[in-house]
Amino acid sequence: MGDTGTEPLTPPAVEHAKLVSGAVVWFTGLSGAGKSTVAKIVYQELKKHGYRTELLDADAVRKSLTRDLGFSRSEREENIRRIGFVAELLSRHGVIVLVAAITPYRSMREELRSQIPRFIEIFIDAPLEVCERRDPKGLYRKARAGQLAQFTGIDDPYESPLRPDLHCFTDKETVDESVAKTMTHIAEALLT
Amino acid sequence: MGDTGTEPLTPPAVEHAKLVSGAVVWFTGLSGAGKSTVAKIVYQELKKHGYRTELLDADAVRKSLTRDLGFSRSEREENIRRIGFVAELLSRHGVIVLVAAITPYRSMREELRSQIPRFIEIFIDAPLEVCERRDPKGLYRKARAGQLAQFTGIDDPYESPLRPDLHCFTDKETVDESVAKTMTHIAEALLT
Repeated sequence: MGDTGTEPLTPPAVEHAKLVSGAVVWFTGLSGAGKSTVAKIVYQELKKHGYRTELLDADAVRKSLTRDLGFSRSEREENIRRIGFVAELLSRHGVIVLVAAITPYRSMREELRSQIPRFIEIFIDAPLEVCERRDPKGLYRKARAGQLAQFTGIDDPYESPLRPDLHCFTDKETVDESVAKTMTHIAEALLT
Repeated sequence: MGDTGTEPLTPPAVEHAKLVSGAVVWFTGLSGAGKSTVAKIVYQELKKHGYRTELLDADAVRKSLTRDLGFSRSEREENIRRIGFVAELLSRHGVIVLVAAITPYRSMREELRSQIPRFIEIFIDAPLEVCERRDPKGLYRKARAGQLAQFTGIDDPYESPLRPDLHCFTDKETVDESVAKTMTHIAEALLT
């Protein structure tokens, strides 16, 4: 294209517009394992350090971007695909995107890894009985009572990561310990 | 939260992570009016100037984020809502997001304006007969032949913007002229 006759874009803005490497940090694990809890604090820490960061919590996103979707296998896959699409797009613009989503199937997570350049899989792990005892949203109780079908861990599988980039054991670690491990891991990933 | 024991985040990255004001530049108009043509060149120009920018073309997005949607009124609305969600999210991180989408209903565009802090509506305008003559994708021919239902301008309405932020007349202006007007408008909007 030729000269558009415009010279409007001021240097200061351009200076700040340089790209940093974004990343997608994907917290996977059972409901009640602590994904949102850890992700929220990591989000605040990253912001405090001046990073561009975004938290996509699957529960929240189900009120907007994926509100048409239920919990069948294909709907769960579509849910993750949409969140993955948005996360990848944001990360391309230098955002450290934190995703908190059960993401129960291994194939889903492999698909994400293959499509997102800097994908960090963090397994937020607690035994089912611990998650069920915590039951922060009363969902396990409902699932056991037959009021919720296809609930991960009850009547829908959770396929544990075989080689996650980081493994947090929230039944043995404090929240602060899981957060610290995650922050260190992200920092190391950003430096490479 | 207490000290996580990490001091990992290097100053250079923080320096580049400062926010600039993003914007959502929404190109509305009939199929064949030139939305994608203008948006693509604006995208390249903005990149050339060092801006973080993203182009969301509704036709392309219908292959991923909105591939489940058809062309009924409610599906068109959902299509625009999802694109709007992603555009707003990106703009919040300093990206100038260009959206090329027919967006036929006024109420949709008003909804976007009410939800996106820096929303710029650009009406890419050409008379229906001009668009139909151009028919770059052969869609008008198909619609006239009854092979495409609910085609905007034929058997589905296009509600022209009453007060767009910018009005490009692609039947009277060259592409370069429309691009130049758009660039100037974006630049002015970014300075305010």
